[in-house]
Amino acid sequence: MEPRILDVIQSPADLKVLSDEDLTILADEIRDQIIASTSEHGGHVASSLGAVEIILAVHSMIDSPKDRFVFDVGHQAYAHKMITGRLAGFDHLRELGGISGFPKPNESPHDVHPSGHASDSLSIAAGLAKARDLRGGDEKIVVLIGDASIAGGMAFEALNSIGQMNSQLTIVLNDNEMSISHNVGGLMHHLGALRASNAYRQTRDYVSNRIEDSNAAIKAMAGFGWRAKESMKQFFLPQAMLFEQLGITCTPPIDGHDIVELRRVLKTALSTNGPVLVHACTKKGAGYAPAENSPEIFHGVGPFDIKTGEQKKKAEGMPLCFTEVFGAALIKEARANEDIIALTAAMSSGTGLSAFEREFPDRFLDGGIAEGHVVGTAAGLALGGKKPVVAIYSTFLQRAIDQMIVDVALCDSDVVFCIDRAGVVGEDGPTHHGIFDLAYTRMIPNMRVLAPSDEAELVNSLHTALAIGGPVAIRYPRGAATGAAIPDEASVFPLGVSRTVREGDDVAILAFGDMVARSVAAAEILEGQGISARVVDMRWVKPLDANAIADAAKTKLIVTVEDGIVAGGAGEGVVAELAAQGLSARTVQLGIDDCFVAGGSVNELLATLELDPESIAHRILTSLENE
Amino acid sequence: MEPRILDVIQSPADLKVLSDEDLTILADEIRDQIIASTSEHGGHVASSLGAVEIILAVHSMIDSPKDRFVFDVGHQAYAHKMITGRLAGFDHLRELGGISGFPKPNESPHDVHPSGHASDSLSIAAGLAKARDLRGGDEKIVVLIGDASIAGGMAFEALNSIGQMNSQLTIVLNDNEMSISHNVGGLMHHLGALRASNAYRQTRDYVSNRIEDSNAAIKAMAGFGWRAKESMKQFFLPQAMLFEQLGITCTPPIDGHDIVELRRVLKTALSTNGPVLVHACTKKGAGYAPAENSPEIFHGVGPFDIKTGEQKKKAEGMPLCFTEVFGAALIKEARANEDIIALTAAMSSGTGLSAFEREFPDRFLDGGIAEGHVVGTAAGLALGGKKPVVAIYSTFLQRAIDQMIVDVALCDSDVVFCIDRAGVVGEDGPTHHGIFDLAYTRMIPNMRVLAPSDEAELVNSLHTALAIGGPVAIRYPRGAATGAAIPDEASVFPLGVSRTVREGDDVAILAFGDMVARSVAAAEILEGQGISARVVDMRWVKPLDANAIADAAKTKLIVTVEDGIVAGGAGEGVVAELAAQGLSARTVQLGIDDCFVAGGSVNELLATLELDPESIAHRILTSLENE
Repeated sequence: MEPRILDVIQSPADLKVLSDEDLTILADEIRDQIIASTSEHGGHVASSLGAVEIILAVHSMIDSPKDRFVFDVGHQAYAHKMITGRLAGFDHLRELGGISGFPKPNESPHDVHPSGHASDSLSIAAGLAKARDLRGGDEKIVVLIGDASIAGGMAFEALNSIGQMNSQLTIVLNDNEMSISHNVGGLMHHLGALRASNAYRQTRDYVSNRIEDSNAAIKAMAGFGWRAKESMKQFFLPQAMLFEQLGITCTPPIDGHDIVELRRVLKTALSTNGPVLVHACTKKGAGYAPAENSPEIFHGVGPFDIKTGEQKKKAEGMPLCFTEVFGAALIKEARANEDIIALTAAMSSGTGLSAFEREFPDRFLDGGIAEGHVVGTAAGLALGGKKPVVAIYSTFLQRAIDQMIVDVALCDSDVVFCIDRAGVVGEDGPTHHGIFDLAYTRMIPNMRVLAPSDEAELVNSLHTALAIGGPVAIRYPRGAATGAAIPDEASVFPLGVSRTVREGDDVAILAFGDMVARSVAAAEILEGQGISARVVDMRWVKPLDANAIADAAKTKLIVTVEDGIVAGGAGEGVVAELAAQGLSARTVQLGIDDCFVAGGSVNELLATLELDPESIAHRILTSLENE
Repeated sequence: MEPRILDVIQSPADLKVLSDEDLTILADEIRDQIIASTSEHGGHVASSLGAVEIILAVHSMIDSPKDRFVFDVGHQAYAHKMITGRLAGFDHLRELGGISGFPKPNESPHDVHPSGHASDSLSIAAGLAKARDLRGGDEKIVVLIGDASIAGGMAFEALNSIGQMNSQLTIVLNDNEMSISHNVGGLMHHLGALRASNAYRQTRDYVSNRIEDSNAAIKAMAGFGWRAKESMKQFFLPQAMLFEQLGITCTPPIDGHDIVELRRVLKTALSTNGPVLVHACTKKGAGYAPAENSPEIFHGVGPFDIKTGEQKKKAEGMPLCFTEVFGAALIKEARANEDIIALTAAMSSGTGLSAFEREFPDRFLDGGIAEGHVVGTAAGLALGGKKPVVAIYSTFLQRAIDQMIVDVALCDSDVVFCIDRAGVVGEDGPTHHGIFDLAYTRMIPNMRVLAPSDEAELVNSLHTALAIGGPVAIRYPRGAATGAAIPDEASVFPLGVSRTVREGDDVAILAFGDMVARSVAAAEILEGQGISARVVDMRWVKPLDANAIADAAKTKLIVTVEDGIVAGGAGEGVVAELAAQGLSARTVQLGIDDCFVAGGSVNELLATLELDPESIAHRILTSLENE
């Protein structure tokens, strides 16, 4: 193997001695390394490949970590990680104890904040810039944000505020014309029009030199007080830059894979005492044909074959994943009820709605990275007599809790929330686990909450939610379901009735969702120790099954098991129900104790959280012994 | 009293027979009625006065409730309420059982949704329009939104989506140049520039007729493919309409108090198959000099003297309110620590920060109605070494729960959240009560939560939060504190240590925040029944005082009392702590049981929730008897 520049880069400071040509070679090396690493470990391939030159150009012009380079949704940051001393770490990318697929301040001083939710980078940067200005510091603040993220409401709020700043803040807009799914909305059209305006730059100078030539129309305008020369820019852009109207200076679109051009423009931007947006056009997956051709698939992938780009197939006979089961079940429901509308927030594929979108294009709405708006739209659809079904990942729905409360639940509207990626999701780590939804759905009045434990339960949960009306949340995990047979005819669950999946009299394990199967496994371990453990699939997080809880109180120990934060979670609900019934019983609540969860494989993570079958069994034994 | 047109208006249909002159007279009558009603009951005066003509113009052009008139933050809707059969109801405005100060679908079919949180109307309307189009309906959808609300992120998300619609949706922008505090941000400057462009309309036709005259510059432009005529609009507006770039047709600014002009423009907008924004310029408080002169004071007021505009003073010797105590305490802290920065979201006065802003203008940030961005900025400030203190009402902070989790708590950053208006707030009703914050702060890892019960506790809580670092939430109620002496030197509370405010052995009442004083009163009632009740001011919601809970378990009954939702609240935390300690004890959790709370006076509402001293005492007695 030839010696690589990449291998001698210990920190961004090493970039300073590189020529433009060297930087271009380095970009290619990084690209090969990203492909090699992700082919083995999976990861965010397409966006990371698209941002290589931007990252090199920025780091070659600033002095990180004194200067601060902020990433929005850091899954494009692999190049940044490789040149900040973490190249070797890519051997354990996204593994427990290995390096994260996202920036993490505890990994490196070059990582400013643990970015993972879209659209927050500009606010973080605004705060950093304000802190710098108050301190009288001179460090540069640079943000890298994509065209999908910048359409999120929080980013707009920040742009609205940043436009008033009088100190350096450089925003690099990585405009790759595509969010995780396809990009949506007026801003996308606006950016598209800007990209199409290549003539602009060549013509601006030519024309603005001639603008003061005498002319009736222009004289008339001038007579009304308009500064014709300044208006020229708007005249030549098909539509004036939206960002400029918020007070942010914008560059014309430049080639985001051209390091020389990037460095030239960045030089000006970094020395400007005010916010500047550098509009860099890139190609998602750039330099790797399979990713260029299928950027949506290569947004986030598992291991793949480098030559063909084919993802390693799951083993024959593996059960469907919950997401697929949901997508198919919703299509079936929608065929029978034309009022059903599916909504998602930039995740049509991720939430299993691609087939729904193809079959019912008019009844499918993708609001982009705009969870609040999507939930608000669902509220409006329900007021208009429709049956909206909102499919959003648990962690991203955190952005719309207020809308769930005020716009949906307060009206007791028929909105079904299908909360995918609930619980511990694996490699993406703390920003992506869905460990709060049990708490944030339970607290909402009028909300009913279901936690299906297998694919049959999911199908029936969806059917139930649509049948009973009012706001209903259904939360289910990432990944393969259990292989349970899917019913031909879905049925409606009675409200607040659990199902006992294993009989037992010593201990009652009241389990929620994905923890049911693991609790059954724990019960089998306990049986080997002579302990008879009942396992109840609680099914309903709200309302809870009061009878099942009363029955459980007749055993020696009640154990609740959930894959979410204990504070405010389902287990506390069980304990409160016991109190409400005036029952006293020994209880143990297993779940995630007031901590964030790292990235890694789900099974490894559950083991560290003591939520794997062995740990559950062990903790029950210990509790019984301490009696 | 002369006969009024207003008295014969039973529904908006009655407006159809009125002449423009009659409508103008009606507007004056409504204005007088708003002033008379609010002078007696308090309410949102300035914004309601500003929107009278817009509301009359819209209702005279549409057919509500078939057509749907959606209000954003409905506190400008009084005129709407008066002409939709609720004039008599204004005798009991904002009282329990009376009419709400906000639209409420359960009051009238003319009220589309319970608006109360800013920026959600456009999403609601987008959903209603989509439902209409799928149904093949022809009802009109009209939104009334203010210039402060439209700058919120959720509104931008909706505009980004609405721009792609091909069916009727009329947005009336009520541009009164002022949000609750002062307006902030680039969008405000943009709107200001538009307002200043009165010359625009008169000149546009003149010039566009001449634009095709031959001219070197324009020919050059045309040669590059630009349609010069269409570009004219941008040429004449000082900056092109930001909204148009998102695909929304905009009118030039018009006089929002001119019914004739409003009706003329609305006629076109309502018949357009696409989204149209009607830019109506109004004056907040229009027609009532005291409100015009002090619109911030007259945003939301208590009863006032109509002649002078003076608010009825609170009685001599009344204690300060929590908000004032917080504002003064923060100034004192900030004088001693220059790293402290105060942030708010369009509520500098409401959160008690006006004096701070005057004393430390550089260390004060108002992000506008943009809670997510404000919390994100605080996260950035903390990463930059500052000590941000974020003051936001409990109900509005619901918009930033995700940012509290991902941007602040995940970094364990030094951000103090001062959560004002926690608990039951009174007249503004269900959208404004702060009943979820105990649940949504408790669930967040690394977050510590304090609930001060009086002004001394608040001062010490703030001092403690700044001293211990990390994310800390302090939640305190609206209104007068207890009159407790404020300490000269604030002290640092030991973590998770409560204080017993009343000794007793039969029952232990573990109370949080504002419920402490009411629990003491309940204990005194119980004493009359021969029951000795301990009252513990728990002080810390998280971490809870494990020792105090263990001690409480030695009594016959533990009663937790909180002014928040029970599910996920502090009481459940107490019950879970008992379980964690392996203690069995009878417990009762008092709080708000899975319901929204109406508007009315705080004491009346607490009585209906059985959280007043008599009810608390009664419930404890009943529990003891059932033993």
